[in-house]
Amino acid sequence: MEMGINGKRVLIIGIGNGIGKSIAIAYANERAIVTAVSRDEQGLRKLVLEMGGESKGHSYMATDLMIDGNPTKTAKSLIERHKKFDIVVHNIGHHLGIREPLAPVKEWQLVWKLNVGISIEMNEILIPPMIEQKWGRVIHLSSISARILRGSPQYCTSKAYLNAYVTTVGRYLADKGIVMTSIMPGAVEFGGGYWDEIKKQNPEKYHGFLKEHQAIGRMGTPEEIASFAVFMGSIHSSFAPATNIPVDGGSM
Amino acid sequence: MEMGINGKRVLIIGIGNGIGKSIAIAYANERAIVTAVSRDEQGLRKLVLEMGGESKGHSYMATDLMIDGNPTKTAKSLIERHKKFDIVVHNIGHHLGIREPLAPVKEWQLVWKLNVGISIEMNEILIPPMIEQKWGRVIHLSSISARILRGSPQYCTSKAYLNAYVTTVGRYLADKGIVMTSIMPGAVEFGGGYWDEIKKQNPEKYHGFLKEHQAIGRMGTPEEIASFAVFMGSIHSSFAPATNIPVDGGSM
Amino acid sequence: MEMGINGKRVLIIGIGNGIGKSIAIAYANERAIVTAVSRDEQGLRKLVLEMGGESKGHSYMATDLMIDGNPTKTAKSLIERHKKFDIVVHNIGHHLGIREPLAPVKEWQLVWKLNVGISIEMNEILIPPMIEQKWGRVIHLSSISARILRGSPQYCTSKAYLNAYVTTVGRYLADKGIVMTSIMPGAVEFGGGYWDEIKKQNPEKYHGFLKEHQAIGRMGTPEEIASFAVFMGSIHSSFAPATNIPVDGGSM
Amino acid sequence: MEMGINGKRVLIIGIGNGIGKSIAIAYANERAIVTAVSRDEQGLRKLVLEMGGESKGHSYMATDLMIDGNPTKTAKSLIERHKKFDIVVHNIGHHLGIREPLAPVKEWQLVWKLNVGISIEMNEILIPPMIEQKWGRVIHLSSISARILRGSPQYCTSKAYLNAYVTTVGRYLADKGIVMTSIMPGAVEFGGGYWDEIKKQNPEKYHGFLKEHQAIGRMGTPEEIASFAVFMGSIHSSFAPATNIPVDGGSM
Repeated sequence: MEMGINGKRVLIIGIGNGIGKSIAIAYANERAIVTAVSRDEQGLRKLVLEMGGESKGHSYMATDLMIDGNPTKTAKSLIERHKKFDIVVHNIGHHLGIREPLAPVKEWQLVWKLNVGISIEMNEILIPPMIEQKWGRVIHLSSISARILRGSPQYCTSKAYLNAYVTTVGRYLADKGIVMTSIMPGAVEFGGGYWDEIKKQNPEKYHGFLKEHQAIGRMGTPEEIASFAVFMGSIHSSFAPATNIPVDGGSM
Repeated sequence: MEMGINGKRVLIIGIGNGIGKSIAIAYANERAIVTAVSRDEQGLRKLVLEMGGESKGHSYMATDLMIDGNPTKTAKSLIERHKKFDIVVHNIGHHLGIREPLAPVKEWQLVWKLNVGISIEMNEILIPPMIEQKWGRVIHLSSISARILRGSPQYCTSKAYLNAYVTTVGRYLADKGIVMTSIMPGAVEFGGGYWDEIKKQNPEKYHGFLKEHQAIGRMGTPEEIASFAVFMGSIHSSFAPATNIPVDGGSM
Repeated sequence: MEMGINGKRVLIIGIGNGIGKSIAIAYANERAIVTAVSRDEQGLRKLVLEMGGESKGHSYMATDLMIDGNPTKTAKSLIERHKKFDIVVHNIGHHLGIREPLAPVKEWQLVWKLNVGISIEMNEILIPPMIEQKWGRVIHLSSISARILRGSPQYCTSKAYLNAYVTTVGRYLADKGIVMTSIMPGAVEFGGGYWDEIKKQNPEKYHGFLKEHQAIGRMGTPEEIASFAVFMGSIHSSFAPATNIPVDGGSM
Repeated sequence: MEMGINGKRVLIIGIGNGIGKSIAIAYANERAIVTAVSRDEQGLRKLVLEMGGESKGHSYMATDLMIDGNPTKTAKSLIERHKKFDIVVHNIGHHLGIREPLAPVKEWQLVWKLNVGISIEMNEILIPPMIEQKWGRVIHLSSISARILRGSPQYCTSKAYLNAYVTTVGRYLADKGIVMTSIMPGAVEFGGGYWDEIKKQNPEKYHGFLKEHQAIGRMGTPEEIASFAVFMGSIHSSFAPATNIPVDGGSM
């Protein structure tokens, strides 16, 4: 199926985990031109090479978006350099080890900032050029935790906020040619990731989780999420603005 | 993006409206082998020709599935003839003009039968061969009415039932290699369809609806639904069992 | 808090389990006049005595509502005898031991009939006199299964249908002075009930369920559901039509 | 129905609008001892008089909780003075006139702070004494906007966050004797309130809203919300922890 994104400029924010990298590669495979952003310069360099190198137009920017003001500064500098992005994928998300239900409000704000605040701040800069060209795709990596609400309360609430952000702002953008969506992955495993660690250190927990909570009986792969991230960024998602799409192995 | 369904056998039940036809053609375009079922023999014959004819393996069966016993009989006869289907798309759905909130229970049952009962009855026959081969896709055309719950109560409740069916039965099938999902279209327009009629007869209602309730500000096209129906039937939906996917132009 | 239901006529359909009986008694305690319906004549007679006897106006009707035509017949005969009911509580619900995901459609219909069909059929007769007097309360005992969707698929889908019925029909009734709602209990324990049996026969399952799935760490009591059933039947629910209220010990 | 809160200490945070005041009075009517917090000292003084005065134990504290650090300081000072509260009602919420979908992140944070941040910060201080005494009720005034997601995006997302907060933290508290819930009002009218203004200045919008979006066909009253706030604070909510309760006139 033709995705219609050959030559489109794609910005992928957050490459630290297996999912971001898989999304970048999946877009490159469709001949989109990828710019990747993360803290890890070495990882970014390797990724660009893996996608075919800078000669294909791919590029990166290494920066820590949790530093105050950096999301705006980074977005502005990216727009200066590339004029506009047709597709933006927000892939930053983590619970930061914060999970105490009566934690200080500052910790709730920190997790919110990482999972939503950075995206909101960058969208303010990244979306207007999409509005101008009357075409755009903005894809947020949320989590099925936004609905299931198990695990770190600070993480779950931030993802629930993100879903509501996608619904409300996505509706506003819908008649401007821009499709804003979220993808809600269930438990996904990759080298060095959370579930990879659990499998090694606590196989009982790993298998107990699969049996109790993931109907498919296995972890997802980053590639299974990346397919959806490309499809929602393609011409085919044109009638699906403001939607939150579960890709979760049958969470229960 | 390679959908991985070249040569797969696809059964599409319900071709009467624009969406079913678009789905059939979209599958044929991916070189899947399509069997189409509906009441309208002439329409089926034309559709098969449009997909390239019987020489490509496409076929049809004309029958009225609302007749008691017909879903089972039809499914059995289809399995006899084709051994199994890799992908089944259930596209029968309508409110039948029934919308009185205090209507007799028989009318509630009738709408339920059309929108869910037929599918349940046929799945009993169609799914076991999928379980045997450890691969399958079952896609139900639900409606965003399942969530928004506006319009005919009998229709909305049936679609809500259908979504819950997909979640519960979809979980059961998830570890057997079968991905059961639903797609929830918003308002879609096609020649001779509901919104086509409204546009002609009551343009004020047509435009009022778009303004009030569909953020994208236009009706959807059958093709925009068909893309999702193919993607959910492809190899790429492997980690999305038991999900209900909105494709609704930003219903609100 | 004054419930404002002193002297109101209440019909409670389904007394077989602990919840129905508790609701009847809770209403009687607020000096409402109760009519109870179930299959178990002896149980009904005892219940009426427990509420203070027929001299207080309480009454019962023993009938099996699963017999075709009986819901209509029973509702008509009740309206003939009592003219109207101000408050109706539908408390019939069970999975009937049916839980096979690929079960014949007849079994899906049977569970639907018990959990929703009977109520729909009786409401056709019971609600018009409420509309006439511009005041009424209709309370359906649903289940948190309508949202969690774990357990018998036939039961879960029927309860999801019931919730959607309450939303759609509840909206229609809202401006007519009638408040239709559902209550969604989580796991509740009472002598002879499901969890009472499990506790005796499979204590490991009982405690495992509590630990995994009910945040409160204990089963609910029928009285904890009955309080909500009275509150939603009172004058205080006037602004809560068409709502589905969870009372579920924190299902997760 | 006996609410079982005679003599209980109730803290109500946010009295500025009609709902907070009605809740305070409803609790006082059940002979609970009320402490009210808001910015408006004069309003607080009048309220205490209306509830029977300080001789009945009622008290107030005037403070602006949007000032950094004030929620913690206020909560600590209240606990110092009153030792503990059995019931806390959080009634602060507003969109602050912020509604631009691509607004700066600071504006999103501001609305979040008002609608959720203050409550989270105060709960850190107010809940531990409840845990100690193994009994407590924490009631958050959310909004049906948390589900409907129409109106100010910053407001809707904050209320969606609040609902998820109540679910996650409410589950944690459930087995400690504490019932944390939210109430989600629909459109409510009171002198000087939002809809009161609209009715005067834009009656067409007022009536259009009622017709399109509120099935009951009228605005709610503060008393209709207050009844639920008392019921959820009573002994009768013991099996309803972590729930979000709509009281919305049939939003659609």
